[in-house]
Amino acid sequence: MSQPQREVKVAIAGATGTVGQRFICLLSSHPYFRISSLHASPRSAGKAYKDVVKWKQAVRLPKGVQDLVVRSCDADQFGDAEIVFSGLDSDVAGEVEEALRKAEYAVFSNAGNFRRDPLVPLCVPLVNPSHFAIVPHQKQQLGLKKGFIITNANCSTTGIVVPLHALEKAFGPLETVMVTTMQAISGAGYPGVPSLDILDNVVPYIGKEEEKIEWELAKILGGLSDDMTEFDYHSKHPMKVSAHCNRVPVVDGHLECMSIRFARRPPPSPQQVKDALKAFYCEAQKMGCPSAPQQAIVVHEAPDRPQPRLDRHDENGANVHVGRVRECPVLDLKLVVLSSNVNIGAATSSIINAEYAIAKGIV
Amino acid sequence: MSQPQREVKVAIAGATGTVGQRFICLLSSHPYFRISSLHASPRSAGKAYKDVVKWKQAVRLPKGVQDLVVRSCDADQFGDAEIVFSGLDSDVAGEVEEALRKAEYAVFSNAGNFRRDPLVPLCVPLVNPSHFAIVPHQKQQLGLKKGFIITNANCSTTGIVVPLHALEKAFGPLETVMVTTMQAISGAGYPGVPSLDILDNVVPYIGKEEEKIEWELAKILGGLSDDMTEFDYHSKHPMKVSAHCNRVPVVDGHLECMSIRFARRPPPSPQQVKDALKAFYCEAQKMGCPSAPQQAIVVHEAPDRPQPRLDRHDENGANVHVGRVRECPVLDLKLVVLSSNVNIGAATSSIINAEYAIAKGIV
Amino acid sequence: MSQPQREVKVAIAGATGTVGQRFICLLSSHPYFRISSLHASPRSAGKAYKDVVKWKQAVRLPKGVQDLVVRSCDADQFGDAEIVFSGLDSDVAGEVEEALRKAEYAVFSNAGNFRRDPLVPLCVPLVNPSHFAIVPHQKQQLGLKKGFIITNANCSTTGIVVPLHALEKAFGPLETVMVTTMQAISGAGYPGVPSLDILDNVVPYIGKEEEKIEWELAKILGGLSDDMTEFDYHSKHPMKVSAHCNRVPVVDGHLECMSIRFARRPPPSPQQVKDALKAFYCEAQKMGCPSAPQQAIVVHEAPDRPQPRLDRHDENGANVHVGRVRECPVLDLKLVVLSSNVNIGAATSSIINAEYAIAKGIV
Amino acid sequence: MSQPQREVKVAIAGATGTVGQRFICLLSSHPYFRISSLHASPRSAGKAYKDVVKWKQAVRLPKGVQDLVVRSCDADQFGDAEIVFSGLDSDVAGEVEEALRKAEYAVFSNAGNFRRDPLVPLCVPLVNPSHFAIVPHQKQQLGLKKGFIITNANCSTTGIVVPLHALEKAFGPLETVMVTTMQAISGAGYPGVPSLDILDNVVPYIGKEEEKIEWELAKILGGLSDDMTEFDYHSKHPMKVSAHCNRVPVVDGHLECMSIRFARRPPPSPQQVKDALKAFYCEAQKMGCPSAPQQAIVVHEAPDRPQPRLDRHDENGANVHVGRVRECPVLDLKLVVLSSNVNIGAATSSIINAEYAIAKGIV
Repeated sequence: MSQPQREVKVAIAGATGTVGQRFICLLSSHPYFRISSLHASPRSAGKAYKDVVKWKQAVRLPKGVQDLVVRSCDADQFGDAEIVFSGLDSDVAGEVEEALRKAEYAVFSNAGNFRRDPLVPLCVPLVNPSHFAIVPHQKQQLGLKKGFIITNANCSTTGIVVPLHALEKAFGPLETVMVTTMQAISGAGYPGVPSLDILDNVVPYIGKEEEKIEWELAKILGGLSDDMTEFDYHSKHPMKVSAHCNRVPVVDGHLECMSIRFARRPPPSPQQVKDALKAFYCEAQKMGCPSAPQQAIVVHEAPDRPQPRLDRHDENGANVHVGRVRECPVLDLKLVVLSSNVNIGAATSSIINAEYAIAKGIV
Repeated sequence: MSQPQREVKVAIAGATGTVGQRFICLLSSHPYFRISSLHASPRSAGKAYKDVVKWKQAVRLPKGVQDLVVRSCDADQFGDAEIVFSGLDSDVAGEVEEALRKAEYAVFSNAGNFRRDPLVPLCVPLVNPSHFAIVPHQKQQLGLKKGFIITNANCSTTGIVVPLHALEKAFGPLETVMVTTMQAISGAGYPGVPSLDILDNVVPYIGKEEEKIEWELAKILGGLSDDMTEFDYHSKHPMKVSAHCNRVPVVDGHLECMSIRFARRPPPSPQQVKDALKAFYCEAQKMGCPSAPQQAIVVHEAPDRPQPRLDRHDENGANVHVGRVRECPVLDLKLVVLSSNVNIGAATSSIINAEYAIAKGIV
Repeated sequence: MSQPQREVKVAIAGATGTVGQRFICLLSSHPYFRISSLHASPRSAGKAYKDVVKWKQAVRLPKGVQDLVVRSCDADQFGDAEIVFSGLDSDVAGEVEEALRKAEYAVFSNAGNFRRDPLVPLCVPLVNPSHFAIVPHQKQQLGLKKGFIITNANCSTTGIVVPLHALEKAFGPLETVMVTTMQAISGAGYPGVPSLDILDNVVPYIGKEEEKIEWELAKILGGLSDDMTEFDYHSKHPMKVSAHCNRVPVVDGHLECMSIRFARRPPPSPQQVKDALKAFYCEAQKMGCPSAPQQAIVVHEAPDRPQPRLDRHDENGANVHVGRVRECPVLDLKLVVLSSNVNIGAATSSIINAEYAIAKGIV
Repeated sequence: MSQPQREVKVAIAGATGTVGQRFICLLSSHPYFRISSLHASPRSAGKAYKDVVKWKQAVRLPKGVQDLVVRSCDADQFGDAEIVFSGLDSDVAGEVEEALRKAEYAVFSNAGNFRRDPLVPLCVPLVNPSHFAIVPHQKQQLGLKKGFIITNANCSTTGIVVPLHALEKAFGPLETVMVTTMQAISGAGYPGVPSLDILDNVVPYIGKEEEKIEWELAKILGGLSDDMTEFDYHSKHPMKVSAHCNRVPVVDGHLECMSIRFARRPPPSPQQVKDALKAFYCEAQKMGCPSAPQQAIVVHEAPDRPQPRLDRHDENGANVHVGRVRECPVLDLKLVVLSSNVNIGAATSSIINAEYAIAKGIV
């Protein structure tokens, strides 16, 4: 599958935040996306990016953006960008993204505001870019020619939905998913989690996170109606999901312990599950999306892997790591999943979504 | 219930290790136990305790033991101690404890070697001191007058078995227990977990820990045969248990996320469960064991509690903290449990067991 | 020295903050101070303390204060308290403390606002309660009968000034002090340091901290003029001080590496220094202040001590730990100092200051 | 300056250890070094590398070495390698490296055994590759044709000696260096520092580290006699050095706070110092050594930089970061230095040394 013959101008909304900074890191060396403008709150507008950002990445601020003059998030400030990546906080994302869509921009958002919108795909690019098929309906309903919104999922959902999708593809519907997360502090942004709350500690609670996992899995793993106008939320095979969410003193990388049960009896064996996960090859890979991983799911045989510190940077955090696949005395199988919450769990997902949309001619 | 009229001499085997150091801290200010001798490996024997121990406690080495001359673990070195507390490593605990029992000592062991022995109580003092009733049979089978072994449970088992027992007492048998642990580094002893493995990391594996939880719960929650000679391993109401065990960068305090299902339909509500946990009052409390907590189970209403750093020192770590009691979309209920792995999860359990034995006249 | 025959009513200003919480912990079990009222910002006023505080201490909120109705910090809200302990943030402390003094309260403040005031003692209770002698002058200048302000020092200053004072007392004036601090996160309050800034990291900068150390040492180690109306700022023996301040991922306990040079030639030997530090016995101890430590300076011989996690809780954090006393190839001596920034470095200092004032009849 | 026209075969001794693993990471993608063999202890010999190594790097084990059969460290096992990189532990490094030199291998060692040898260069490649000029004398004295040993410095020395050298080059000799280090746990190897010693803690002691810094600086910053047979240890301008060494809970990256005094009066200003550090350009850069950094010393203006987590990966850890250059009230200047202890502080130094030797025709 080929890359576009042309460069594509992209803007970043919420460019000074932690997700915005990740967008900048990833897009500065992208093969065809070119950052045309950076947008942030009015108090940053008009100033050089390097003077307003508190750059907290472990790589240098790319030279190309240091002196870009930050613009406001008003829709008339986005010029000839074809795509807007949104790393906005949810308190402003709703209004800004809606205005951008109305102004005929293609918006790829990491914010949560439109995830439950019945016209908006909630898309993990290694799983359900097929949901993009609802975009024509979204445009039509709103009387738009080019403008639309596509969101990616919450970080803790993203990690587990990749192997869950691979398993449903191989073995049919899942009936039950139980997951306990151990989530990195970077998932809470900056300043985010106070150090006094998390050093030498675990906080067994993340506001609304459990509800997000329990709800988002159904939308992502479900399908579309035949006429491509409605999501089915996995309703043909209702799935019970239960989540415990914890914050742990880890910088990056969400680790999640799952127990699952398949509808099919007998269920696949651990070896069959591992084989299916290794063999998983997704649409975004087939379409040659440049930010998609080579190996979407890495399966570990070592008993103590995956681990956040050792595995989160593999393939720039674009893939998902699975280990400890074994039988569960209660459900069918237990496994451990590690994903880079700041990459595939956030900015990388938006970018692959956009690459896929380019490849499919949706943008 | 009264305390003994007399002081009771106790010896500590494995006195230089991390559990042994905890025994010293706890016993140095005990109302009636008096440390009569400290025992360690032959290379420490003959030297002053303060010169051989790498003291790693956050309190000073008690003056009374600094100059005690360490003795070997040979049974003839234990003098007139009535009780031996064992914090020995499992590679030597089997042989030493067996010899001590044969030499007619009452051995309260934190080691794992005899936990599965069909004659030895596996006793969490807030749960099943009733299992001490098998001790006469143990002595008889071995032709002993006073010698016996009582073990306490693995630290990750101990935390959850307290509320599980309270719930079984209130609502009848449990059918299913699913637990994901986040265990502190002190659970692995010293030097234990290398810092390179755990700083900014989680290790999703602790050797044999999951099997221990899955097995020990049945022995502890089960009963004794009518003739007090056999454990029933909860066999009247088989219970399915599934555990995921993780090591997290926390110094002390195991946090465990559980989902449970009762046999009884409908199950109790979250409020009923909280009420039952708060009302739980156990035998060790009734007997006035001085190291038993005032409130065995503390129930938290704050959504983000319990937390290791804030709750592990409550009542000297002798109790268990429960929070986030809520409905589970898959099983009946979800809850979070915090226990001090170095106290109720280790040395404190042995000590309360011994206090209970004293109170009951078993020693 | 005897304790007062009476109870003394004390109020706490800034009661919901981290220093305020420490005041509550320490004062709730105090032999003669009784908390009469708690004061915080207007938005907390009128509500029960337990409902407005985000209690972040590793001990339970004392029962006696849970239901105290929080009052505002207006001076007319402090009733018949004789002493006000202030844990206020510096943005409001100046105005509030001034008003309280004017309303004839004895204010013992942990805030920095009046530390450089030429009428206000900057008093580390183990070092220079002799500076209280300026209080009559302070009252007189302001036309007050009972009202005055006494501050304690910045936490990083407090740790090192105790041994420095002990050494000046034994060996005469110091000429040079070079110090590099490694300061705990609790020193920055709550929410304070974002976890993303400090997990797996050190921040080699704490705003204005180096200037504070360099300035405060002179005021504290200096004397008073003969007429008790002016501080001499160590001007008879000018002292050069240079500080590097760092924030490290430690919850509590500031560790500080010092190199020092005495005026006297030849300088004392490491052994003489250790002996002098051990022998140090201060006015607050002589006067029987109940919160003063038994041993003001603990000297360690183990090469790897003191350490924050192991030594910060000794004597409730009221003392200072010194280790690694050795020759310095550049100045005279090198040593390492550990102090509990939340205790002797903050609330405990204010409380001992107040105890000393009571003992001296200043309050 | 050009790269060699040919590939150079290199062997790694101590290949399973932490430094050896770093050598593998760095050499697997090197432009002209090719790993020809891996060497470790006898118990690993004969087995595939992937089966004996506990791979603890945050990148995957390179495919090219996974199945290499590990050989012993006997000199006859090194085949036709031209260069041996040694990451051996000091308990075996002395003997093995000596035997390799005698067998006519060019040994570039990270071990400490030969650092004080009067014939062996102690070479930080960004500072004193000029010391390679003693190699002919080394060979001659030992009757060798090609065999020699070159060591690199201890990690905590390496970080500071780079800016110290740059400053001596610009402003003449230094008279005094005072340094307090905050060193990462990876500097102690694996298993290295027990997590119980360092989580929520600082250890103010690293065995022999202070002596190493105090001694190594003189050898590295000093020159060679005119006949290239002796080091002068900075003896023309004796330099006083005093170090405090601390271990902090940071994975990688040593942070060091320095105060320095120049011989020259008046000393350079902070701005002059910053300009000189920025302008520093070293021999290894001029010779085009491919592993040398583009910018050897990065100077930060932000008041809170450098920081380990944010700056340690810059230029693959091959450079050194300096910040907070300011006047010192005691000596002339204060500054903060950050270096990647596992890269320029260890394996990267050996590799650039070897590249330089190749470029100069010494190998």
